[in-house]
Amino acid sequence: MPGNPLVRDRDVEFLLYEVFDVAALCRLPAFAEHSRETFDLVLQTARKFAREVLYPTYKAMDEAPARMVGAGIQVHPRLKELFPKLVEQGGLTMTRPHAVGGQQLPHAVAAAVTLYGMAANLSAVGYLGLTTGAAHLIEAFGSDALKAEMMTPMYAGEWTGTMALTEPHAGSSLTDVRTRATPTTGGHYRVRGNKVFISGGDQDITENIVHLTLARIDGAPPGIHGVSLFAIPKLRREGGALVPNDVHCGGAFHKMGWRGIASIALNFGENDDCHGWLVGEPHRGIAHMFQMMNEARLMVGMQGIATASVAYHEALAYARTRPQGRPLGSRDPSTPQVPIVEHADVRRMLLRQKAIVEGALSLGIQTARWADLAAHAETPEERRHAFLLLDMMTPVVKSFAAERGFEANALAVQVHGGYGYTSEYLPEAWLRDQKLNTIHEGTTCMHSMDLLGRKVVADRGGALRLLGEEIAGTVVRARAAGLGAELVEPVERAASTVAEVTMALAALGLAGKVDEMMRHSVDYLDLFSTAVVAWQWLLQAAVAREKLAAGATDDAAAFYEGKVCAAEYWIKTELPRIDHLAHLCRTGEDSYARVRPEWL
Amino acid sequence: MPGNPLVRDRDVEFLLYEVFDVAALCRLPAFAEHSRETFDLVLQTARKFAREVLYPTYKAMDEAPARMVGAGIQVHPRLKELFPKLVEQGGLTMTRPHAVGGQQLPHAVAAAVTLYGMAANLSAVGYLGLTTGAAHLIEAFGSDALKAEMMTPMYAGEWTGTMALTEPHAGSSLTDVRTRATPTTGGHYRVRGNKVFISGGDQDITENIVHLTLARIDGAPPGIHGVSLFAIPKLRREGGALVPNDVHCGGAFHKMGWRGIASIALNFGENDDCHGWLVGEPHRGIAHMFQMMNEARLMVGMQGIATASVAYHEALAYARTRPQGRPLGSRDPSTPQVPIVEHADVRRMLLRQKAIVEGALSLGIQTARWADLAAHAETPEERRHAFLLLDMMTPVVKSFAAERGFEANALAVQVHGGYGYTSEYLPEAWLRDQKLNTIHEGTTCMHSMDLLGRKVVADRGGALRLLGEEIAGTVVRARAAGLGAELVEPVERAASTVAEVTMALAALGLAGKVDEMMRHSVDYLDLFSTAVVAWQWLLQAAVAREKLAAGATDDAAAFYEGKVCAAEYWIKTELPRIDHLAHLCRTGEDSYARVRPEWL
Repeated sequence: MPGNPLVRDRDVEFLLYEVFDVAALCRLPAFAEHSRETFDLVLQTARKFAREVLYPTYKAMDEAPARMVGAGIQVHPRLKELFPKLVEQGGLTMTRPHAVGGQQLPHAVAAAVTLYGMAANLSAVGYLGLTTGAAHLIEAFGSDALKAEMMTPMYAGEWTGTMALTEPHAGSSLTDVRTRATPTTGGHYRVRGNKVFISGGDQDITENIVHLTLARIDGAPPGIHGVSLFAIPKLRREGGALVPNDVHCGGAFHKMGWRGIASIALNFGENDDCHGWLVGEPHRGIAHMFQMMNEARLMVGMQGIATASVAYHEALAYARTRPQGRPLGSRDPSTPQVPIVEHADVRRMLLRQKAIVEGALSLGIQTARWADLAAHAETPEERRHAFLLLDMMTPVVKSFAAERGFEANALAVQVHGGYGYTSEYLPEAWLRDQKLNTIHEGTTCMHSMDLLGRKVVADRGGALRLLGEEIAGTVVRARAAGLGAELVEPVERAASTVAEVTMALAALGLAGKVDEMMRHSVDYLDLFSTAVVAWQWLLQAAVAREKLAAGATDDAAAFYEGKVCAAEYWIKTELPRIDHLAHLCRTGEDSYARVRPEWL
Repeated sequence: MPGNPLVRDRDVEFLLYEVFDVAALCRLPAFAEHSRETFDLVLQTARKFAREVLYPTYKAMDEAPARMVGAGIQVHPRLKELFPKLVEQGGLTMTRPHAVGGQQLPHAVAAAVTLYGMAANLSAVGYLGLTTGAAHLIEAFGSDALKAEMMTPMYAGEWTGTMALTEPHAGSSLTDVRTRATPTTGGHYRVRGNKVFISGGDQDITENIVHLTLARIDGAPPGIHGVSLFAIPKLRREGGALVPNDVHCGGAFHKMGWRGIASIALNFGENDDCHGWLVGEPHRGIAHMFQMMNEARLMVGMQGIATASVAYHEALAYARTRPQGRPLGSRDPSTPQVPIVEHADVRRMLLRQKAIVEGALSLGIQTARWADLAAHAETPEERRHAFLLLDMMTPVVKSFAAERGFEANALAVQVHGGYGYTSEYLPEAWLRDQKLNTIHEGTTCMHSMDLLGRKVVADRGGALRLLGEEIAGTVVRARAAGLGAELVEPVERAASTVAEVTMALAALGLAGKVDEMMRHSVDYLDLFSTAVVAWQWLLQAAVAREKLAAGATDDAAAFYEGKVCAAEYWIKTELPRIDHLAHLCRTGEDSYARVRPEWL
């Protein structure tokens, strides 16, 4: 039996080239040096490395987590070999511009590339995304000196980076950041404070780590508008040497998954000798940090998809080869048992996983493409439109992949039956990994409030109108491709439902009834996500139908038929749920709003 | 802060005495020696022991699992102290008759009693249920000699028991059992075969273990009607001494949860010297085993409820005490942060957990009460009615608690945010424990086929008619209690929906369209479960409203208001889902029936 493919190559090819035509991005000046050939080369390198090198190390890292030894974190020894190879393959600078040594690849392609590594070994590649995100903050907002001192070694993979936001007393409430930064005459600040849940906050892979940290400059205004962004290295340069910067690992959290990368408590300035360098403008730290947070959110979305994908492929291979039981009504024990994929409910569980994984991936690549257009499209209007769509879809990609990915991962365990519950098989490990994705980089609730409270009402609903146009375009294409009304019309109606519910809720907000507007924000996010994934499935089915009509070979036909079938599954079994969700949002059903803490 | 209550005492009291009036069971001859006082005494002992002794050992057992050492399993050392104490408290014989040394407690009471132990330390008490179930098989079907030899030491807690059904090549397909039993002239059989996933299959707590094992007597007909039941001890008696019986531990599975009890591969007769004793009639093994399987299924249901309950109470305490963020629209950073229970979405997550936990517990106790009436009600008709309801509801209690319990456990992790993902807090461990419950003792799919293919169509729909009458009775009571139409009518409609969908599907079955009938069996189970839990919530709300009308003190009022509120939540937000499920069942939506393995 061939190994787990992690991600289906044919699906990546379909999405990149047949659905989203990312080769056309090469017509933009930013990507002029690229072509489908260069994209394929990067993809090929990544998938080969993921399958042959990263994936075989996953179980060992899950079983022997990164842990605190003495004053610091010791990672799995294999990581020290893997990280330089990942760097060598351009893992840190794929999307960064040539000016900083990057390959300037479109995000749409990079998303697919990174997916393989994430599916193979989530925490091993976790160091890459954090380092790139942190270096990119310095690239965007840092001084030239800071770029030379910190960004350059980070992009080179000599140092890594982290994002240090959360504090123990406040969790997600960044308004309440207490870490303090006192100006000095040396150009740096003296920082004191405590952070928690810092992924990659310590490691023994590279000599140094730069923590992009939120802190409050002495005398800053209270609240969110008094928070600034600092780069705080573990070791600082003094007289040409790197010396300790009074940054301490306060202990590692023992996590249920993501075991290859430690999440730690980080203490700055225990001896009042921690130097931090301001990145960007004072008190604008949250605004700056949002660049990294938004990148990280899309990254978490891809992590969710990757984790569900590898488990789906494992379950599929198992179901195709594991004989057990017989078809309904044929209980003759002298006939051989059939592979469990023959049982309707096993196919249901597999088709549901497929619908979640490939639906989310389609949305993920669609969104990454908007990121490319937001930065590099030809006209300011195109860039603005793409930015609005990107910004709106970011919480959706993140949360859908995390929430539904968890469901898909649970189904992969279930398909494996009793074996799925054991660590002799991998699905249970991926289920544990996936759970983090509904929590880190903003919980599902926070993303629902971001979507409803900011994104869909921004620009007087501009993003939502653009989305409506996109969906309308797909509807036209789907009809032309010959997809039936039973697939097209529900998606058309869903777009109207999203628009109507949004307007009704926005009206509540305008009337000052913010609690009522936001009460069902998680249901709204569910509604919105289910609808846009249905749109993505209609799009995929339309392209598949076009290809089938153009005459596909048998193998290709099976792939396209699978796409149409998964679209039918999602549109007919899942999409109808939105009517009830819309009802809850519209009526503002208030049981949990009314429930008092003492009633629970 | 007081410790985790595991289960809310007030809720147990409410269900036992105010909703289901289990004290009235004492009017039946079987329970004549009992009274509310004896019930309360047993409950009080169990909850005190669970909170003070069992619960504090849970984390240690999760962290240091039972494991194979040499040829056998070594359990956590604390278990060797705990097990005799659990036995001493009557943990093995609560529901067994006086004739075999039992306390002859109603199942309805015993269910609540065992719930505390399960919530405190699931795998520690797992040995009890297995031992009782195995001994009860011998009690019901074994010879007097076998009872004296094996049942007696099992009920005394000197030996333990297991159920040995699954074989590696066949999983749940018991038709394909291959373990062989050859008659001898010594009254025993010589057994050879391999079993997997035997919970408690080995341990070093007691000197002996009796495996209630499915095997095929030489020359038996093929298939399910050629399978017999055997008692196979680890050590057999020879000349007054216990000697090895050629039963070998073939290795322990490493499980994601349930770490205190090993699940092992068991090899019988590697040296052709394994003696087994027939229990009951030849070839009737499956029918006999169903006694234990049905008991085990209800037990798994209670385990699912218990695991969700302890996590709910942990999340509730955390939410009441953890300050983070501020109410919507009041971002003033100089005001103190509020406990997260003040955030609407946290209350949603908690109310959902409450609705699942207390809704399932109500159904569980209702069902246990039917078990009591099925065995001990005064008239044959009452017993038959109760049996039909018990038999129908068994797969529902098991699957609902497992599936929705898993969702509730995931929410308990989510309420804890980043901390929930760490093993410094317990919710992640309970989430891992809970996942097994959708798999063992029959997967959710198997229970859906049992419900739809057997239970609701049995006796020409007799059980379903009785259920309809029960629900109609509750509807009358709810109206009389003053509950509004918005709560009562949806439950009334749901009962009709269940009946109509069942008839439509049964008609398909009668027409020979079994695949179509069964295609959406899991959706049918979901529909059925959601509806009957809505019924249980209406019942609880009706009783609560009666108590409120009668004038409750403030504390009591908060409890009853919580019941009404949770009923509203379930009926308004969850119950409406059944319309779509009914549509899927009725129309036979066929995407996953049509999907071919190569399309996936």
